[in-house]
Amino acid sequence: MKGGSMRKEFVVEQIGIIRTPFVAQQDTPIQPSGARGAEGVVEVNLEYEEGLKDIEGFERIWLLYWFDRAGPMQLSVIPYLDNEKRGLFATRAPVRPNCIGLSSVKLLRREGNLLFISDVDMLDRTPLLDIKPYAPRFDVYEVKKTGWLQGRTAEGMKADQRFQSS
Amino acid sequence: MKGGSMRKEFVVEQIGIIRTPFVAQQDTPIQPSGARGAEGVVEVNLEYEEGLKDIEGFERIWLLYWFDRAGPMQLSVIPYLDNEKRGLFATRAPVRPNCIGLSSVKLLRREGNLLFISDVDMLDRTPLLDIKPYAPRFDVYEVKKTGWLQGRTAEGMKADQRFQSS
Repeated sequence: MKGGSMRKEFVVEQIGIIRTPFVAQQDTPIQPSGARGAEGVVEVNLEYEEGLKDIEGFERIWLLYWFDRAGPMQLSVIPYLDNEKRGLFATRAPVRPNCIGLSSVKLLRREGNLLFISDVDMLDRTPLLDIKPYAPRFDVYEVKKTGWLQGRTAEGMKADQRFQSS
Repeated sequence: MKGGSMRKEFVVEQIGIIRTPFVAQQDTPIQPSGARGAEGVVEVNLEYEEGLKDIEGFERIWLLYWFDRAGPMQLSVIPYLDNEKRGLFATRAPVRPNCIGLSSVKLLRREGNLLFISDVDMLDRTPLLDIKPYAPRFDVYEVKKTGWLQGRTAEGMKADQRFQSS
């Protein structure tokens, strides 16, 4: 019952840009949990501003974005929080078949098409693909098993150049 | 300080397929929290199987997928859990500029390139774009403000045809 290969392609378009204090991968926190307090701004293209209505009611939002400075795909990676090779899909490393990043950030306020956020962990000028509300009943689950991440913390961890395009 | 428009495009490719019991939008749970117990299988294309190593250590995983049967984009929508028009980005509706869906599902077991999952809320044969580990320290935040979703529940809610392509 091994699945046949499905290879459809889809086009995603940048709907805005994420401005952050991090210009080089080397100094960027590796997850929002290691980035508490770092502030940024999401500039949503004006044509999509209507879609931001009601978002200010949410304390946190998901940002989906494109890892535009990631190096080539690697199916086995040594993640920042480990010394062993792990399967890519068991990590959040950016060197993915589809370079889509996912981070929950804190929404401080909205001004028109601008979202002021904190807990940012992405590079400055990262292309924005989507925004979704962070909703505990959809997104929060109690889990006991967290694989190789068990007991590791991202607090204070910074990225280095291992996943960078040359 | 209104942002200029940024319009880069990126190509995403299907890396597998999600098999679920739901063939029509009309009967599909609207979120994994309304889909507890519904089982499915993620068939990852064989060329990516190596990237699944270590994933079985995780109790839950994020699936990122393409809403391939969503209707045209709507920047204001009446979501399933409400009677009022809401800004698209304050909802999880599929009619987005980039039709990327995001669900946390329970990982039951892996057999090679197949992931057996439960709490599925997507249509059968949905194209898979990415898999990420669900990690409380990256993904779980206590929030008090959940906007228009406050006090609403998705348990037992089923989708209808409002966001379907004709």
